[in-house]
Parts: sequence; C-alpha cells; structure tokens
Amino acid sequence: MPGSNYGKIFKITTFGESHGEALGVVIDGVPAGFELSLEKIQLEMDRRKPGQSDATTPRKESDTIKCLSGFFQGKTTGTPLTLVLFNGNTRSQDYGDIVEKFRPGHGDWTYFKKYNGHRDWRGGGRSSGRETAARTAAGAVAKQLLQTMGVEIQAYTKEAGGIECTQYIREEIEKNPMRACDPVAAEKMMVKLHELMKEHNSMGGIVECRITNLPPGLGEPVFDKLDAELAKAIFSLGTVKGFEIGSGFAAAKMTGKEQNDERDKNGFLSNNAGGIIAGISSGQDIVFRAAIKPTPSISIEQKTMDINNNETTLVTHGRHDPCICPRIVPVIEAMTAIVLMDMVLLQKRNEFVK
Amino acid sequence: MPGSNYGKIFKITTFGESHGEALGVVIDGVPAGFELSLEKIQLEMDRRKPGQSDATTPRKESDTIKCLSGFFQGKTTGTPLTLVLFNGNTRSQDYGDIVEKFRPGHGDWTYFKKYNGHRDWRGGGRSSGRETAARTAAGAVAKQLLQTMGVEIQAYTKEAGGIECTQYIREEIEKNPMRACDPVAAEKMMVKLHELMKEHNSMGGIVECRITNLPPGLGEPVFDKLDAELAKAIFSLGTVKGFEIGSGFAAAKMTGKEQNDERDKNGFLSNNAGGIIAGISSGQDIVFRAAIKPTPSISIEQKTMDINNNETTLVTHGRHDPCICPRIVPVIEAMTAIVLMDMVLLQKRNEFVK
Amino acid sequence: MPGSNYGKIFKITTFGESHGEALGVVIDGVPAGFELSLEKIQLEMDRRKPGQSDATTPRKESDTIKCLSGFFQGKTTGTPLTLVLFNGNTRSQDYGDIVEKFRPGHGDWTYFKKYNGHRDWRGGGRSSGRETAARTAAGAVAKQLLQTMGVEIQAYTKEAGGIECTQYIREEIEKNPMRACDPVAAEKMMVKLHELMKEHNSMGGIVECRITNLPPGLGEPVFDKLDAELAKAIFSLGTVKGFEIGSGFAAAKMTGKEQNDERDKNGFLSNNAGGIIAGISSGQDIVFRAAIKPTPSISIEQKTMDINNNETTLVTHGRHDPCICPRIVPVIEAMTAIVLMDMVLLQKRNEFVK
Amino acid sequence: MPGSNYGKIFKITTFGESHGEALGVVIDGVPAGFELSLEKIQLEMDRRKPGQSDATTPRKESDTIKCLSGFFQGKTTGTPLTLVLFNGNTRSQDYGDIVEKFRPGHGDWTYFKKYNGHRDWRGGGRSSGRETAARTAAGAVAKQLLQTMGVEIQAYTKEAGGIECTQYIREEIEKNPMRACDPVAAEKMMVKLHELMKEHNSMGGIVECRITNLPPGLGEPVFDKLDAELAKAIFSLGTVKGFEIGSGFAAAKMTGKEQNDERDKNGFLSNNAGGIIAGISSGQDIVFRAAIKPTPSISIEQKTMDINNNETTLVTHGRHDPCICPRIVPVIEAMTAIVLMDMVLLQKRNEFVK
Repeated sequence: MPGSNYGKIFKITTFGESHGEALGVVIDGVPAGFELSLEKIQLEMDRRKPGQSDATTPRKESDTIKCLSGFFQGKTTGTPLTLVLFNGNTRSQDYGDIVEKFRPGHGDWTYFKKYNGHRDWRGGGRSSGRETAARTAAGAVAKQLLQTMGVEIQAYTKEAGGIECTQYIREEIEKNPMRACDPVAAEKMMVKLHELMKEHNSMGGIVECRITNLPPGLGEPVFDKLDAELAKAIFSLGTVKGFEIGSGFAAAKMTGKEQNDERDKNGFLSNNAGGIIAGISSGQDIVFRAAIKPTPSISIEQKTMDINNNETTLVTHGRHDPCICPRIVPVIEAMTAIVLMDMVLLQKRNEFVK
Repeated sequence: MPGSNYGKIFKITTFGESHGEALGVVIDGVPAGFELSLEKIQLEMDRRKPGQSDATTPRKESDTIKCLSGFFQGKTTGTPLTLVLFNGNTRSQDYGDIVEKFRPGHGDWTYFKKYNGHRDWRGGGRSSGRETAARTAAGAVAKQLLQTMGVEIQAYTKEAGGIECTQYIREEIEKNPMRACDPVAAEKMMVKLHELMKEHNSMGGIVECRITNLPPGLGEPVFDKLDAELAKAIFSLGTVKGFEIGSGFAAAKMTGKEQNDERDKNGFLSNNAGGIIAGISSGQDIVFRAAIKPTPSISIEQKTMDINNNETTLVTHGRHDPCICPRIVPVIEAMTAIVLMDMVLLQKRNEFVK
Repeated sequence: MPGSNYGKIFKITTFGESHGEALGVVIDGVPAGFELSLEKIQLEMDRRKPGQSDATTPRKESDTIKCLSGFFQGKTTGTPLTLVLFNGNTRSQDYGDIVEKFRPGHGDWTYFKKYNGHRDWRGGGRSSGRETAARTAAGAVAKQLLQTMGVEIQAYTKEAGGIECTQYIREEIEKNPMRACDPVAAEKMMVKLHELMKEHNSMGGIVECRITNLPPGLGEPVFDKLDAELAKAIFSLGTVKGFEIGSGFAAAKMTGKEQNDERDKNGFLSNNAGGIIAGISSGQDIVFRAAIKPTPSISIEQKTMDINNNETTLVTHGRHDPCICPRIVPVIEAMTAIVLMDMVLLQKRNEFVK
Repeated sequence: MPGSNYGKIFKITTFGESHGEALGVVIDGVPAGFELSLEKIQLEMDRRKPGQSDATTPRKESDTIKCLSGFFQGKTTGTPLTLVLFNGNTRSQDYGDIVEKFRPGHGDWTYFKKYNGHRDWRGGGRSSGRETAARTAAGAVAKQLLQTMGVEIQAYTKEAGGIECTQYIREEIEKNPMRACDPVAAEKMMVKLHELMKEHNSMGGIVECRITNLPPGLGEPVFDKLDAELAKAIFSLGTVKGFEIGSGFAAAKMTGKEQNDERDKNGFLSNNAGGIIAGISSGQDIVFRAAIKPTPSISIEQKTMDINNNETTLVTHGRHDPCICPRIVPVIEAMTAIVLMDMVLLQKRNEFVK
C-alpha cells in the first residue's frame, strides 16, 4: 500500500536499493500452470542492462535473475513468483560527496525530507534507476502471458537530443544504440550524444510505445481507466515528465470534428483516441508517448545544499547514461505489460454471466 | 477495486449514471471531528455546474448536494461521509439515435464491448462527464482539510482553441467564462468559441494547475509517486489526452544542465521539476498541465456503426459544452485535492518514530 | 480502506448511521448483464427487518430498498450498483441518557475514543446493528449470482439461551420465530426468551451456517484463506464473540487420526475440516458456527461513566431484540455470500491458462 | 491482492515454498528512522524453529534471517524491508508417496484443484507450516515498533491433548517445552504427548494470547474491526479451527446482564468483551483463544486418493511436530503484532484534526 505495490490481481511488490544486497519483485496472482521461460526474462534484463553501447553507461551491474519461489518443474504454481537480482560487492565503494550533499535533479533531498532525515545514499538507494530492473523482470512475465493472447508491445525512441524520427522501421529498433525507430535519425542522435558527452552533459528525448492486438473491453472506469493506469505506470518511472496518448497535447488545438474517430465496416477511420475511449480499450492499436528528462547525473559543477543546510557545489562523478531513452525502452514495455495483464485478469469477471 | 474507488486512507467511491436516479460519493477515512462546511462544497458544485455562461452548455442539472452520512452537529464523525446529487425526472426524455448508434469519440462502443453488450445509454450513463460531479464534491471536502494546512490549489485555462494565455492574473480566472488566467486571451478564446459554435463544432485546450504551500515529503515511491498519482487522477477524466509536469515535454529537448534545478540558501533556483523530485514533493510549487480534447458531442454528421453492426451516420443533438476547459477547472482541482489529502494521511506513518 | 470496504473484485462499500438520513451500499465489480431481481433483495431485507415476531424488537424501520445506480432495463450494467434505505423522520426523537452516558456493551465509549471525542449518538450511529441492513442488501445480490452456480447458503439458530437444537429440519427454519433448525428446541427457546424479557434481560446463542454445492478451489492462500475471510466477515458483525469451522474448538481435544478426513472413491469419509483445507474449498459442504452474545441493550440499571468522566448508572430504554440470533441469520448468510462471490471472481484468473 | 499480502499501511507480502530456494517477506510501510534490531528478529525465528525439544519435530531447518533491503546503518529507511530465509539443499530428497498421493488433512488436494492441477509437492510447498517463518520475521519487526509504545503481546498454550492449564504463570511459559502457562499442566501434556508419539499419532490444543497496554481507539469499523482482523490473521494459519475473544463461545449461554462489562472510576469491572467493543480497542487487555487442530502428518495408514483418481492408502513418513501448540505460539504473537501495527498507523489519520 505505501507505494511498492502495483496491480490488483496481477500484483507486483518490488524491493531493494541500488547498492544494497539485492533488488527483486514478488508477483502475486500469476495464473497457475503457465510454462514460463526464465530465459526470456533474462533476455529482457539484458536489454535493460548497462554497458550495451556508448549510449549507455559502461558501469557493470550483476543483472542475472534468480527465481526464488512460485515456479516448479517449468511451470508457474500460482503462488507468489519471486525474481531477485543480487548485487555484487559494492561495500568498499567510495561514495564521496553524495553522502552529505544533495545532488540536483535527484531524489536525495526529497527522500531526506520524507523519511525522517535518514536514507540509503549509496548509489541513490531506492530512488536509483536501478530499481527498474525489478520491474523489467515482472514485465517479462506479463509479456509472456500476453503473448499467448497475441498481444505485442513495442517501445522505441521517437526523439532524442532534439532529433525526431521521421520514419518507423520496426526491425531497426533493436539494431541501433538509441533504440530509435529511424536508423538515420539514430545516427544523428549519436552525434549529438557524443557532443554532449564531451561537455559532461546529458540529453532527453521522447519514447513512444505501441500495443497491438489488444482486445477491446480492457480498463476499469472511472478511476482505473486504461489510459489513467498507463499514465500512472509510466509516470512512476522517475525520469518521466510527460505522458500523452493518441493525439495527445495536439488535441488541445483540434476541433471536435478533427479529433473524433469515425467508423465504418472496416473499422475506425483514424486513431486520435490512441486506442482507448472512455478509459476502455477499443481494439485499435494503443499508442502513447513519454517525455524523458535528460539524465540528472552530469559531471558539471552545480550549486546545491548539504545535509547541514550549508550552500555548496557538487560535481557528480561516476559513469552514467548520457541519455536514458535506450535503456528505458524495455522498462516502458515492462510497465505496460504489467498494466495490461492486470486489466486482462480483472476483466474476466465479466465472463461470469454467459 | 474494479475502478470506482480512489485513494488508500482518504478513500473515495463514486457511483451513478448521468440520467439515473442519483450520482454520489462515499468518502471513507475523513479525519473525525472536522468542522466541515457543506456550503463550501455547494460552491464547488456551482463552479462545475452547467449553464454558467455561453462557454458552457445551457443544460440544466440538479446539482444540489445532500449529505447522507458521516456528518453530525457540524462535524465529521470519521465514518463514511456520503454526498449525493439526485437527478431530476429524466425518464420522459427522448434518447433518439444514441440508443442504437455508437457516438464517435464517446465510450458508447467500448462500454458495449466491456460490459457484455449491455449499457445504460441514457446521456452516456456512467461514461458521462456528469460523473465528475461526484468527484467535485469529494474534492471539496479534501480542499477544506488541506486549507487547514495552508495548501492552496488553483487551476485555470492556459490555452483554448489554439489561443495561449501570455500572462497569469490569478484574480481574473473566475471572472471570465473561460476561466483563463489572462483576460485578453480569454476574450479571443470566446470569439473562437462562437465561431465554432456556429459550425456546431467544438474546441480543445490546456488546463494548468498550481499547488502552493504543500510541505515536502509527500508521495509514495516507487509506484505511487506523487506525480504518478496526479497523472492517474487527471487522466481518469475522460477528456484528458496528455499530462505533463514542470518542464514536461519540453524536457525532451533540454540538457541535464538546463533541466536540473540548482539550490542555494534561498531555495531552488528554478522549477523544471514542477515541485516533485523522485516522486516526492520538494516544497516548491507543483505545476502541471493537462491536454483537454475538444468535446466529442458535435452536431455535425459523422460516420459510425450501430449495435447491429451496420454502417450509419449520426448527428449528436442536444446542448453540449463547446469547450470543456472552464468546467473541468474545478474538477481538476478536486482530483488534485483528493490525491494530496490521501498522501498527507499516508505520510503520517513516518511521524511514528520521533 | 479505513474499514467500510470489503472484497477485492466483488467489492462493497457501506455507509450510513442508524438514525441518519440513509444507510446504503455501493457494490463495485458486479458482473455485467445479470438479470437481477430487486424483489429478491427486498425479501432478504424483510427477513432481517425488526418486528417479525416477539423474538425480535417491535421497533418499526423503513427497510424498503431503493436502487440508485448500476441497474438498467432489468440487468446489471457492470458499473457500481447502489442500494439505499432511507430512514424515516427520526429527528424529533428524545435520546435521553445516551447522549452523555456510555452504554455498557456498546461501542459508545470506544467510538468516542477513536473519533476525537465526537460521535453520532443517535441510536448508536454507525455502530448500530442497523448497519447490517446494507450488508443484507449486498448479500442478496451475491446470493442471486451464486445461485446461478447452484451454490446455496443456509444459516439457522443452533443454540439459544442455553437450549441446543438436537435435530436439523431445513424447512422448519423459517417457520419458527427463532429461525432454529429444530422446532422442538425453538419452542423451549421461546419460553426462555419470555422469562428473560420479563426481567428486561436478553440472551445469546449460536448460529450455524452451511454452504452446499460450492466448487473446490476457492480461497486465496496464505492470508486470504477462505476460512480466514469467513472468520473476518462474520467477526465484523459486532455481536459475534467466536467463530469455528468443522470440528472447531473440539479439534483441540482430538488426535490427528480422529481429525483427518480420509477419502475413497465416494468422497471424504468425514468432514472435520468443515469443507476447507489449507484455506481452499474442498468441494465438501462448508459448515461454520458463530457465537452470538446476548443483546447489550437491557432495561436493567448498570454502572457506567459519562462523557465528563463521572460515575453514573444507566438503564437502556426502548425496544430491543431480546435475542439477536433470528435476525442475524440472514445477515450471516449475506456476509457469507459476499465472501464467496469475491472468491469466485478472484479464482477466474486461474482460467487464463487453458 | 490474491492472498499473499496482509495489511494496509504496515503491509506485508510473503513468498516461498517449504523446500524451494527461500522463504521471505517484504514489509512496505515500516516507519523510517527506526533502530531495528536484527538480533531480536533472529530470537523470534529461534522460538519458532523446529528441534527445540521433543515436543517439536527434530527436523533441521535453516532459519537464519537475512535482510536484503530497507535497512541502512542500523535504521529502517522507510522503503520496503525484506527479510529472507534461504533453504538448505533439499534437492536430493526423496519425496516418495506424496508426489502422487494426497495426504489427508493437508492442502495437497485443494491446491491441486485450485492451481490447474499443478503444485509444488515438495514438503507441502506453499501450504507448509514452514511458510509461517516469514510471518514470524515480519511480526518481530512489528513487535519492536509496538514495544516503543509499551504494547506487549504474550501467547501460550492454554490446553493440549485435553489437559487444561489451571493457573497462569507468565515466567513459566518459555521454560517448558509446551509453552504452557501452567508448569504442572505442561508436564501432564508431555506425558500425553509421549503416549501419542508412540502410536505415531498427534494432538491438538488451545493457544491463548494476551495483549497489554494497547491504547483505546484501534480498529476500523465496520468490516476491519480489530477483532475481525485478529480473527482473520489467526485463521490464516492453516492449523486453526476456531477463534474466540473475551467470553467467546461461553457468551452464547450468558444473559445481557452477565455479559455487559460495567464501569466505574477505576475502569471496567469485568472483561467479557475481551478488550474490544464494536470492533475498537477499549484499553483493556485483549484476550483471545485459538483452537489448534492436531498435526495432520501422522505415521498411521490412512485412506486417500492419488492424482489419477485411484483409491490408495498413505502413511506420512518423516519427522513432524506431535503437537503444533508450542511452535505456533510465536507465530500467533507475530500475526497479532502485524495486525496491531497496521491499526496503529491507520489511526494516525485521526490526529489530523487537533
């Protein structure tokens, strides 16, 4: 309840700090008897893992998933499925300035205020992006379940460093280090990225996600509308500053005649709704976008305060992602899968009346 | 659980259809012994009520709130507080085409698919914007509680029909029919509105909301981050297509150096975060924006399908808001207040350790 | 969350005080398209209603149920179903001593302590047994849904005033004022009851409940075991002091050999488990018993304290049930039905894997 | 949601199977900045551990607790606290008959029915009593928090094998192998126990629990009454067949005059309520009792069925507790502490209004 759970039937609970013993997730509500592939889970972990290219941090993280419960003889048992990543030995590390100084753009200060002036400052503790590893594992389970229904989820970088993709080539996404849907734009993004890296700076972007083959009828009015749940799930990633679906912010400048999606026998004639109407999936593709802020960890001197309330400055050292987009792509897919799987199971109640 | 509840401690449950007997809300978790003003609740209902100007529908709705429980001798009792709006006699009404034809841009078809082919088509039933009246009532309770802490919430139209406000004058907001923060822009918006009304069309816009005097430390990592909960709450309004906080989508084009908010003794030097860092309030003003789609109910012929799966066309008759912005302003404030009040009560657990 | 909700998918929220405007229940998660009979709901309300015989209070209560939402053209819509009982005009009533004196055996004092010294003392407010009327209405919906699966729930007085039933004749239950399963014992109970009424005293008893035709597989380990949920649901009735299932407290004196239920081709050879093993229904009949305390409202002088912390005495006037058993029978059935319906819908997730 | 969570603010999620990799618990909502003693947690684990005397199974279990998250520099961080027990190498074990035969009195068959015919049969899997180790760890955290308020929880064997304690000597409880409150009775219980062990049989009993120094005002009407939550929590232990509070089942034979607890300046004159009135703590000691069934694992031939639906017989081999009472004592204390801690944090909302 106090924040580390998501979902109602397909319910996940995550735990763990960036440099603590382990990070993990408990999934309660996994349907029993499902032939789960742990290998496929590991593949998603590897997609999120740092050090895949120079678009991501060269930091090494031990991202080998281990299953502690809920899985027996190749199948889910229906009891809580627990997936854990044990961190390597991070104890001897020198944490330097961040023990006493609040890093700009990070949760250091807000955690300090929330949790009685006490926090695990090692690598950002619970507020680290590393926390999303546990979500990725849970999402990989949801994805496998959804695939049995034919549902596919694909995210990709749509824009980064001010460079927008102008074409969508699905098979190119995993081939370029930006996970952009346009290989030409991807190259320009990498040029921009290298420029900023020289300045020890970072850049933001936009990630788009497309869900195909989702049946109509999913989403729970009035508060747990499908778009509301997706908005929450995506905004629960610390790096997200905006979320829009279908026509999104462009809808503000449209008229009703332009925005409404008409229909004929062949289906909808447009998709300004983004696949969700009145909070319920329509059967069209769901398309949403998330605004990703530039990585706050930059090696440029910045003004800040310390825990004794003195003015100071800070340069964040260490190796960080110069752009979060490529590594957040699998995490956005994971959160999307988790939301959808929960909605699929919730909707089963309406099968009660034949 | 299946969608009509929001909140964990300050927990609301809404019910009711647009043209049914009544709409209402049960609030469980209201702190006991609070001197609640029913008059202030009614004032918020009146702000949301239709027929306030020609920017809103001239339709008449019975929006007089009645308290059924949880209130005794001028104070809350701590037991469920129930607020209800009884609908007038809507039985004799002629619903015409909408009984059999799915209105474009409305939830008619998705409700049909979700709920076993059975739905209350009268005035949109549960998917009607009228459902937000119950939220407004609950929000008015939350607002009063938050005011005892000094917290203020103010929403306003920031853009409509493509016209953007270029200044912010708080006291002008409630004086113009658009609830815009700029009276000059408001006049232009009204001109645009009248043009579109002649064409039986409608227009969208952007509503901004500002929260002041909120203490730091609110929000529940990792899933129930304060921005994630606000995103969900605002996206649970059927008319919202986008949500952004602080620098929002503009962050996608910024560098880390530009985005990070530095601090000195006087506080933060900027507010790109929008008052929330790592999902926890920082003590700065919280500023977010919602993209509002144009009203889908337009009196222009549109292609659609009927319940027998035949192609047809539909003209939505009746009186509808040509722009939803002014009436959604109090609803956005209400949802914001509900989110904040829940977070305030959740955070009290951290007072356990002195 | 703070206490007035029960259930996860078939989720009820009750509200209302004994002498307030109304009592009611919102049920979220009712499967859509179900042909609900409001008449059958009213029949259950009538079973619970006071004034049915001299075993119950002659007090008159307005127990006519009204449906405010979630029901259209004879069927459930899948949106929140709201059932309300409006109280008659109770304003002019003289509440006498109970405004300032805490009644022994009642929640007056504990409500005073919990809710900041403020409470609705009219007729016990929220702590009144009248609150169970809302549960009865919700249970009547659950019962109808369960009946489509063949599930039947039957409660009855097993013991009262020290007199135990020695036979079980189902068709006699509704024919005697005690709702006892043994008409001979029922007569003796009535004799005892009349004796105690002359002394202005009251008596307790035991109600047993039997569920038949429930499929195996219901219940959610480890915390939401079926017996744990039934225990909670029944103990949430203010008058219950004990709950046991199957062999119950007698199991304490048994050996493993005696307690274990062996099986052969024809099924279980005994039912000491009471139809639930390891928290999951076994397909056998579920049989549980609840200890009902004697009505605390008695017209005998008792020592107590007043709100100013002075010693005083109190005689509770008014007309009260001399034995709660007969009227709690339909309430126990209702709570049982609510628990089961929720479990039925939760179990549907395991149909995901074919 | 589907069963492995308990609590609303102090929220626990358990996972793990008897012979799987590990068992553990994630606690979300632990107040931040609390000086938690891991040693005290281990002491509670040791109280529950098998092999403490001949009243318990001589089986060896690795019950060394490890903390994976939420704890830093000797204090809780307010983020999820994870406690895990890794199981030793149990892979090579021979599970014999229980792979294909359903053990009488165990959840083998009901798990088989619930979870699509697939289950982890190793040592009972999730339905094993070993699952309570995780609860014990969580309870040990709650206990430490409650102790800062002065709240104490003490459980003990009240009756076993038909022998009842006739005196209560608190300091004797932990000194005898039955954890009985009466050393004389304890000796008789051990004699009975040895008799039954020779017959490869087992015996049941009654455990009583007493809570002292709990402030009034805890418990959440109407469904989450304090007694209802305790009933659920205790009944969520697979071995419990009955629960009663205060006068309990004896209330069925009492009159209102006898049952009501009168009060004067010195407090209540009796405690038939058992410390809870109308679901809210009264400030008196809370006293409840649980009926514990005899261990179902007995080495006597019993009739049962196999997974191919054939009649068969089974002798449960291995080393099992001949009486569960002594080892369930710390588990009952743990569940009680978890319930109380959640209620303490929930009640803090009523401090909002000064």
